[in-house]
Order: sequence, then structure tokens, then C-alpha cells
Amino acid sequence: MLSIDKQGDTFLYRQVIDLIAENIDSGTLRPGDRLPSLRKMSKTAGVSIPTVRQAYVELERQRRVESRPQSGFYVRHRAGNDLVRPTRTKALKPVPLSGRSLMERVYDGVNDPDLVPLGIANPCMARPAAKTLHRSMKRVMARAEERSLGYASTLGEPTLRRQIAWHYLDTIGVQVEPERICITNGGQEALLLALRAVASAGDVIAVETPTYHGLLELIDSLGMLAVEVETCPEEGVTLADLVRTLDEHPVKACMFSTTLGNPLGVTMPDDDRRRLVRILEERDIPLIEDDVYGDLRFDGSRPVPAQFLGRKLRALTCGSFSKTAAPGYRIGWIVANQDIDEIARLKRAFSCSSGFLQQLTLADFMASGDYQRHLKALRPVLRRNAERMAALVAEHFPAETRTSRPLGGSVLWLELDRQVSAETLFDDAIEAGISIAPGHIFSPCDCYKNFIRLSFGHPWDERTDEAIRWLGQRVSQLVASQANGRHPKKGRP
Amino acid sequence: MLSIDKQGDTFLYRQVIDLIAENIDSGTLRPGDRLPSLRKMSKTAGVSIPTVRQAYVELERQRRVESRPQSGFYVRHRAGNDLVRPTRTKALKPVPLSGRSLMERVYDGVNDPDLVPLGIANPCMARPAAKTLHRSMKRVMARAEERSLGYASTLGEPTLRRQIAWHYLDTIGVQVEPERICITNGGQEALLLALRAVASAGDVIAVETPTYHGLLELIDSLGMLAVEVETCPEEGVTLADLVRTLDEHPVKACMFSTTLGNPLGVTMPDDDRRRLVRILEERDIPLIEDDVYGDLRFDGSRPVPAQFLGRKLRALTCGSFSKTAAPGYRIGWIVANQDIDEIARLKRAFSCSSGFLQQLTLADFMASGDYQRHLKALRPVLRRNAERMAALVAEHFPAETRTSRPLGGSVLWLELDRQVSAETLFDDAIEAGISIAPGHIFSPCDCYKNFIRLSFGHPWDERTDEAIRWLGQRVSQLVASQANGRHPKKGRP
Repeated sequence: MLSIDKQGDTFLYRQVIDLIAENIDSGTLRPGDRLPSLRKMSKTAGVSIPTVRQAYVELERQRRVESRPQSGFYVRHRAGNDLVRPTRTKALKPVPLSGRSLMERVYDGVNDPDLVPLGIANPCMARPAAKTLHRSMKRVMARAEERSLGYASTLGEPTLRRQIAWHYLDTIGVQVEPERICITNGGQEALLLALRAVASAGDVIAVETPTYHGLLELIDSLGMLAVEVETCPEEGVTLADLVRTLDEHPVKACMFSTTLGNPLGVTMPDDDRRRLVRILEERDIPLIEDDVYGDLRFDGSRPVPAQFLGRKLRALTCGSFSKTAAPGYRIGWIVANQDIDEIARLKRAFSCSSGFLQQLTLADFMASGDYQRHLKALRPVLRRNAERMAALVAEHFPAETRTSRPLGGSVLWLELDRQVSAETLFDDAIEAGISIAPGHIFSPCDCYKNFIRLSFGHPWDERTDEAIRWLGQRVSQLVASQANGRHPKKGRP
Repeated sequence: MLSIDKQGDTFLYRQVIDLIAENIDSGTLRPGDRLPSLRKMSKTAGVSIPTVRQAYVELERQRRVESRPQSGFYVRHRAGNDLVRPTRTKALKPVPLSGRSLMERVYDGVNDPDLVPLGIANPCMARPAAKTLHRSMKRVMARAEERSLGYASTLGEPTLRRQIAWHYLDTIGVQVEPERICITNGGQEALLLALRAVASAGDVIAVETPTYHGLLELIDSLGMLAVEVETCPEEGVTLADLVRTLDEHPVKACMFSTTLGNPLGVTMPDDDRRRLVRILEERDIPLIEDDVYGDLRFDGSRPVPAQFLGRKLRALTCGSFSKTAAPGYRIGWIVANQDIDEIARLKRAFSCSSGFLQQLTLADFMASGDYQRHLKALRPVLRRNAERMAALVAEHFPAETRTSRPLGGSVLWLELDRQVSAETLFDDAIEAGISIAPGHIFSPCDCYKNFIRLSFGHPWDERTDEAIRWLGQRVSQLVASQANGRHPKKGRP
């Protein structure tokens, strides 16, 4: 397979890329195959190791291959079609929230053991850390028997804040002062406090499209308005569109998820993060960063939140243990560089403080090393679930179905035939004992009526296989009935 | 001591009252003495048992005697002077919150083991139920090992909501549908959700004066305004003043604590509750009822929340386990008769749901009977602490100090000489290792600058005795220094 031209005009690493790509396209390298190691490829192709690495990294960015920690680079599974970059079909205006009742019905299924839980993003439940967490909790109960019943301080238990600060240092090399961390009732309250700290009723907030439905409900509940910014399935927020939006609307704050955004699962590249920071710094607009999935990239890599890439940026980065360890503990946090005093005031006014026993437990869980071990064990389970779900979707859904390519987290985003109503599918699925999230709830506009989000964050069993098969067949039926029914204009334009 | 005139113009029960009162005034009956039993008094005085009961109840209302469950009526301790009904010195206007920084400093001491904790109202820590709660929690961890890590539903765990409904039925004979209960992150989030459900930024909210500081912070944080309604230390909200306030201001909602209001410790009599309900029903103004102390009357009696006294009243009653069982669990609730759907929507938007393990634990704690047993054991401890604190204040504080007469809960409200600054005392006390709550934080106006609130909700020890002694001496010094200093107009008008 060797055809490197050292005298040619093309950069050497580009030639390595083309070489690998040709072999993938021809089927010589198949999905799941391991690429030659850097050293071996360097020797074979007669180029330096950094050149090979540059090529592999670019191939990963192109989503042709993926890296796995301590293992190497692998050809990606390509189940079905990629999502395409959205084209803007109308001017984006600040819009209040619709689809409220549908959101309620999605949440109704949260705790229903009779439903196959494909509706709620719940990564850590794919491999619950019950034993180790309970062990930590029992230690805390023994150690602080009466004290653990009492109030935590407003900003939260110092030992937990120190552990979180250490985790940032350990994973991304960033020094965060524990005094700038406020513990919250899960990531959702973190978003509430952050939003209220920088904006008031009537203000316009820029969000991704599609975006996390809880964000939209929050903006609406505070009497604010959302304006959507184009988001590309490969690179996140489209910065050119962000600039246009900031020019056209009096945006008070941006609320973006820069790592494994929900539902697209997209991570903004580092260069784009830096450009994002510069754009917001120039206009003095605060960034609320929803970073609750940061620790859940399959390959264990941890992108640096935008907050830590700028010196002047006013930023509030929201984290949580709900996605990584224990949703029911309701423990999240905010790292705020300029607004920590206001955050403390709001925290006290809105809920006094967060659960003390849970804070002490998570501090013990982190200090013991159990948290890191748990994450290390959880990621490959999520990766396997993701691959299995993608393969089943490719097998059972109509061929024209497009899907996201999550590199972490626990959700797959599907674009169905445009004639299919996700709400109808949702209704049918609930009747069949399956919970899904219809696209409607991820935007204040009506642009995702034929999208659904499926979660693979739960222990996989035969019911899951069966549910995906059922959904695929049902979508095919809906497409067929549309083709034969009143709306014969089936198919994509 | 017998002098009942059966032929006279005075009602028989009035004569019994006068008889007892004379004997108390003369010192024949001393504080702590038990009154004759109903039967014995009936026999001795030659009047019916209901007549004696009527007299004793009226004496209790007059705060000359107090009833103790399964024991009888006792002459009350009278340490120092009663608070007097406030006279309105200026028009009450909607005012934003001041004294914010002082509030922060009070909260800073919450978790400082080096401070004698007289600053925070924390009744259940007077006798923590650690052993029984931990037992319940371990049962839950064993029974629902992995499930207990997951999300609770938005409105909360059904078994806990059923237990709370049962508790209402059991204690006040009122049937509450569990579907109208939403579990919250403590009483504070209950107040947040209730307030946001009925009012928006810019709205005017009527509150008692003095009132719970957390309410004022909440109103301020939501961009609303507070208007104070005169509150009498014996009967709570002055209804005539409430009517005047509603006439003069566009009040959007009332936020009152009808049972053991904080800091006055006053409980609104049932007749007044009914009148309050009628006033609000006529004007279609919702009532947010802060009822977190309802279970903590020393005598175990449980007044009926106003919500259950009216048919049309739009009411949101907020309860909590923070004052009765475990502040650190952050579990409270709202009973909403008309707004439960909006409450659920806000709960989801603001914090998704509340801690699941804690909810399951409290449901087990209640179902096992441990909660009722705990309350029964806690109340006499609080009563003893209250009496001890009142006696120490009478002994060590200047003679003109006026105090509340709490019949439950965990706080004593003190009016000091008007020249004494509670803020100065607060500063001095912190330096001396004592945390207190200065009057400033209980009102948006500056009318309680010479008031302090002392908490007796903690295990009593020598440090507590010493702290009260120290505070009394310090107040005496402050009075003396004012008398000799630049402000010689010492003393009360």
C-alpha cells in the first residue's frame, strides 16, 4: 500500500492521510481494524513519527478513524449516513419555548421500570458505581454520624470543592481555586444560578440548535428568550453564525456545551474554542458553559473548557456528577471566574445549600480513587453501547436515516425521513413500552420534528436490541404510510 | 382560693380565669407549678369540666399558663419582659433588600465548629436522629442498590409523597392528595418554586415584619419587591394592617408563616386564619404559607395550615424535613391546590428533581414510625432548651430586655435597648466565638437594628450557658458605653 512521494508538492502527512483513506474506501482497512502503530507506519512509509501522528489526528478529526487510549487508532464504524451541516432556512429570531407538554411526557417516563429507557440521557447508569459509592457513604456515616445530617455551607463542602479542583488539575492541567467553585443541586441548578447571575427576565440568550431541552425550559421559566445559533454536527457552534447572531440580536449571554453537546454529541475543536473566547471577550458577553459530559469521551481525552482558554472572558462552567456517577445525588457545581459572590448569594436564596451527606460521600469517592477507576471502567461500556446502537440502527432503520457519530456520552441523534413525525413515533413507542426523546423538545422552533434522540446510557440487554429493532420497523411503516397516504411527497429533496 | 360567684354577672369561666390569675400574681402558684386537673378544679370550684377547660385554654391564649401533652396545664416561666405590639411609625412601602452582606456573614458561620451556634435556626440538631435515619438509609441502600443512584421523578418519590399525605391526615385530619405534593430541595426551594409560580419580576409580595431572612433574599433575587405587614408577637399578621396594605399596594401574593413564624415564634389563632383566608379569597390573592415549623410546637398540637381552611383560596403550603429531621438532606415539599402543574414545570426547569436516596430514606423513616417517635422525643428537648435560654437571658441581660415567648421551634427573639447596635454585638460575638443573628436581616427596613435572634436548636452544653452569659454582659457594656459616650440619650422612650 506504499506510495509516498517525498519529492512531490503535497505535504507528507497529507499523503499519509490519502493513503489510509484509500485503503478504507477500498475495504482493505475495515471498520474496527487497527491502523498500523505510529512507529510501524513511520518505518513502512519512510516518514517521521510526528508526520504519521499528524495524519492520524487529522483522520480522527475527519471522523474516519478514532483513537482509543493505550491502544492506538482504529477505523470507525460507519453505520448509516452522517448528519449534514444545517442550512439556515429562515432568520433566527428570539423565540419563547413551545413543546412544553411533550417535554412533560418525556419526563413522565423517567422512573417507569416498564419502559425501555431510551429517552433520558443517563450515561453512568450503563455501569452504576453503586457498591463503591455506598462504601464511601457508609464510611462518611460512621465518621460524621450527626454532623452529616446538618447543613453544608452555601458554597459547599470544602473537601469536595478541593477534590473537584484537583480533578481539573489532574485531567486538563488547569489550576482552579476551590473558592471559585459553588456546589449545586445537580447540573440543572448550576445552569439556573449561572443564568440568573448574568441575565434577567426579558433578556436574550444564545443557544445551540439543537440544544439540551432543560436549557430551553430554564430560559423560558426565567422569562428570558432563546435565540438559536447554527451548530454543525462536526464542530459545534458555527462561529460565523454566532457573530451574525450577536450583530443582529441584543444577546445577554451564550449558553453552549462545548464538549459532547447534547443531543448532537459534538465537541468543539480547540481552535474554535479559542476563537469563541475571543469573539465573546471582544463583545464582553458572558459564556455559560454546560460541561457535564466533559469526562465521558470514549477515549478518555478531556478538552479544556473555554473558560480556561481566555484571560478576560466572563465565564461560568457548569459540571455535575449526575452524568458520571449518581444522578439521584443531585450534586453539580459551577466554576465562576468573576461571578462567584453573586452565585453564592443566589444559591443561598434559591436553595440554601446542597445535600451534605452526598457531598461528603462524593469527596470520599474521589479521594479514594474510586471515581477515576469508575470513569475508566464506564467509558468502554458506553463505547460498546454506542457501537451496538449504531449498528442496530443501520440494520433496522430505513437506509436514508442519518445519525450523529458520538465520541462519548450516551446519546445518538437521528434524522428520520422528513415525513415522519417524531411525536407520532414517541406516542407509538410509549404504547410499545419504549421511551424515546422526540426532536421537538431540543429547539424552540419546529425544525426537528423528524428527529429523535436515543440514549444508550443503561445496562444493555435483549430488550434494548428489541426496542431498536421495533423502532426501525415502525419508522419504515410510517414512511410507507406517508408514501401511500395523503402526503405522497416522500423522500428527501 | 375559692371565690366563684354562681349568681354574679361574670361568666363562670371568666371567674375561674381571674381566680388562677390572682394566685399566679400573688405567687401562690409559681412558674412551673401544675394547675389543678380539670376534674379536680371542677369539683373544687363547683363548675363543670368544660367551663374549667374553657378557662384554662383562655389562660393559655393569654400566655399565663401552658399545656403539656398527657400532663396538664402549668404556670409559664416569665423571664424578662414580653415583646410589645409594634406601632407603625411610617408608611410601609415596597422596598428592596438591604443588609445583604450581613446575611452573608451570618451564613459564613453555619458550619464552623468553633462557633457556639446561636445564629442558625436548626431545631432538629438539638437531638439529632442520626441512628434511626442512618438505619433507614442502609435499608434503602440494600433494597434499591442501583436504583437509588438514579433520578427521582420530577414531583418526587411517590412513597414519600404518600407518607407526607398520611402525616397531614394523622396530625390535622386533612386529606391531601399525594398528586398535589411536589418534593423540593428543602423548604427554601419550595418557597422559590411557589413564589415563581404566582409572581414575576417587579411584583410586590406582602411579608410579615419581622420575617425569615431567606424569604427576603428570595424575593430580592427574583427581582420582586417586599412590602411589610405589621405582625403582632401574640397573634401574627395584623389583619387590619393586611387589609390596609392590600388597599394601598398592588400585592401579587402573600408569604406568611402561620405557625411558629420565624423569628417571632408566633402562631396565628385559628379564627384569624379563617379571616385571613376570607380576605385573600375575596381579593383573589394567592397565599404562600411557610409551614416548616408546624410539627414543632412544644405541646405537640398541630394548627391547620390556612390552605385547608378555605375552599377557593389559591394556596401553596411549604413544608420541610430540614427543621424536623435532617437539614443536610435538602428535602422539603409544596402542597399546591391550583398550581401543581406549574410547580412541576418549574421544578424540572430549576433542578430536575430532588435527591432520590434521601427521599427513599425519609419515606422509610416515616413508614417505620421512627419520624413520629423522633418528633415526640425532640419537642421536650426543645422546650427545656427554650426555658433554659429564657431563664439565662432574664438573669444576664439588662432588665429592660424584651423577649418573645416561643411555644415551639428553636428561636428566641430579643429586643435590646434601642441604643445597642445588633451589628456591633454580632461582630463582637463572632470574635468571642459565638454566632448570633442580628435583627437587620429580618426586614428590608432598618427597624430591627437593636434586635437579635438566638437559636436554642443544638445540644445544650456549658458553652451555651457561657455564651448567653457573655452576650448579656456585652449588651450591658454596650448600653453603658452609649450612656457615657456620644449618644447619652440612653433608655427607652
